Amino acid sequence: MNQSADKIASVAIVGGTHGNELTGVYAIKHWKDNESFKSYPELQIETLLANEAAIKNNKRYLDKDLNRCFKQDELNDLNQNNKEQQLANQINQYLGPKGRSRVDFIIDLHTSTANMQTNIVLIKMDEFHLKLAAYLTLKLPDLVITSESNLMADHHFLCSISPKGIVVEIGPIAQGSLDSNIFEKNNLALKHSLDFVCLYNKNQLPVLGDKLRIMSYFSKIHFPVDQNNQINAMIHPSLIGKDYSIIRDGEHLFRDFSGNDINYQGETAHIAFVNEAAYYDQQIAMCLCQPIDYCLNTFKRITATN
Amino acid sequence: MNQSADKIASVAIVGGTHGNELTGVYAIKHWKDNESFKSYPELQIETLLANEAAIKNNKRYLDKDLNRCFKQDELNDLNQNNKEQQLANQINQYLGPKGRSRVDFIIDLHTSTANMQTNIVLIKMDEFHLKLAAYLTLKLPDLVITSESNLMADHHFLCSISPKGIVVEIGPIAQGSLDSNIFEKNNLALKHSLDFVCLYNKNQLPVLGDKLRIMSYFSKIHFPVDQNNQINAMIHPSLIGKDYSIIRDGEHLFRDFSGNDINYQGETAHIAFVNEAAYYDQQIAMCLCQPIDYCLNTFKRITATN
Repeated sequence: MNQSADKIASVAIVGGTHGNELTGVYAIKHWKDNESFKSYPELQIETLLANEAAIKNNKRYLDKDLNRCFKQDELNDLNQNNKEQQLANQINQYLGPKGRSRVDFIIDLHTSTANMQTNIVLIKMDEFHLKLAAYLTLKLPDLVITSESNLMADHHFLCSISPKGIVVEIGPIAQGSLDSNIFEKNNLALKHSLDFVCLYNKNQLPVLGDKLRIMSYFSKIHFPVDQNNQINAMIHPSLIGKDYSIIRDGEHLFRDFSGNDINYQGETAHIAFVNEAAYYDQQIAMCLCQPIDYCLNTFKRITATN
Repeated sequence: MNQSADKIASVAIVGGTHGNELTGVYAIKHWKDNESFKSYPELQIETLLANEAAIKNNKRYLDKDLNRCFKQDELNDLNQNNKEQQLANQINQYLGPKGRSRVDFIIDLHTSTANMQTNIVLIKMDEFHLKLAAYLTLKLPDLVITSESNLMADHHFLCSISPKGIVVEIGPIAQGSLDSNIFEKNNLALKHSLDFVCLYNKNQLPVLGDKLRIMSYFSKIHFPVDQNNQINAMIHPSLIGKDYSIIRDGEHLFRDFSGNDINYQGETAHIAFVNEAAYYDQQIAMCLCQPIDYCLNTFKRITATN
């Protein structure tokens, strides 16, 4: 690929896509207060607080998760009338529109109550995104790259508006709060992503190695529920904070309210988003992923490993 | 005091006073599902989910913090018309009314995002409450008893409806989530409180020692703010998770968004509710308390120590 044809001129840094994830909201405030864009004179950088009503309400969303509203079909559907769907259309008009967007690259800043460390979520596996991920792996000691195993052709994330986009997901941090260590990790992920863009534009990337490991999601585990569809067990204490570790058939998975343990039945997998508070509304206890290696020369998947 | 005249016949266990503190909500579900009241045939025990609308919305409250709505003046004011004030009146009619309440003792189950451990909050310092606190201190290794230094004559907590009442406050746990270790601590605090009531009624309390240490709140520290009244620093990383530890004049207190440290200026104190997410709406960074010893024979304060 000819990188020069692929040059990134404009970048949008987005915070508050989820209104109770304050790190991104305050990172953008800090960015603006400090005129940090001056550190990158070669880029046009703008910021956006995506869901100001949700931020004001200290809620993830008001009617629907905004970061699930950006599929083209949904954006095209003019009958959609909940608050986040309307907002998604406005944001798509402002940063996009998707498919021929004004902005080249979107960095969307999120946090998790789970111990996700510095997590970059990819929704595309092309040269740009894989090299960005490899670059960040060099720079950030606690970085974990994740993606869906089967990428959606038309993704629902906000960062899918532009041809290039990532989610930065740092944790653990309680919703509606700030933590200086988490804030620093977020700022480092942002800084190194922008540094990468400048080096990428100038064809000055360092040696990135031959392959990149990505944790690929392939399933979710839901909480057990009773006959009234209410959660009736909690995640086993041995798994709390153990995101990205391995779970094997027969190992502890849940503990019910009487203290009885419930074991995992299934293939060996890595766990992530363990006890994410934002997923309780869908009764998701954790996600399952597996490491997949990608070749940094062909940008193809090499093999699946466990 | 003649304990028999003071006998506790009826107890209300309350959860969901704050709608996003799930531990109490599920503790009550578990209590009902398991008919746990059968373990205490000598007591009339009922349960209440206090703020079902807030629970459904996964929010602490809708209009106003319900656990600040139970002052007699506010309950008497029929012009109050926000959702929680109306709800407070209904709950007061149901469990109370305050001053001549149907229920003798209220245990109100809460959680904190701060590392509060097993915290019992007292709003009265009479024989019953001090002995209860001393008994729980024997039974729960991580127990910390707290109170206001100057008790309100007419308290605003829900548990002030009945002549006897406590808040159980367990942390750290993110809002809108469950954790089996926190759930177990909550259940132990509940169990030992009810065990105490039975022993108290029968005059069969064990030896409780001569004195009891209570962490008494005397002040709060607010976040620094900018000219737009927005938070512009975070709690210093050295203090996160360090609830009940000592802070001294000149020690680190905050870190601003550029990484500069801000030091504490003030008298030596213990810190608590450090970075409590629920207090961000009031821009409270932490509370300050000091240990005060109470005599378990006279039920008077002995002395203040640091």
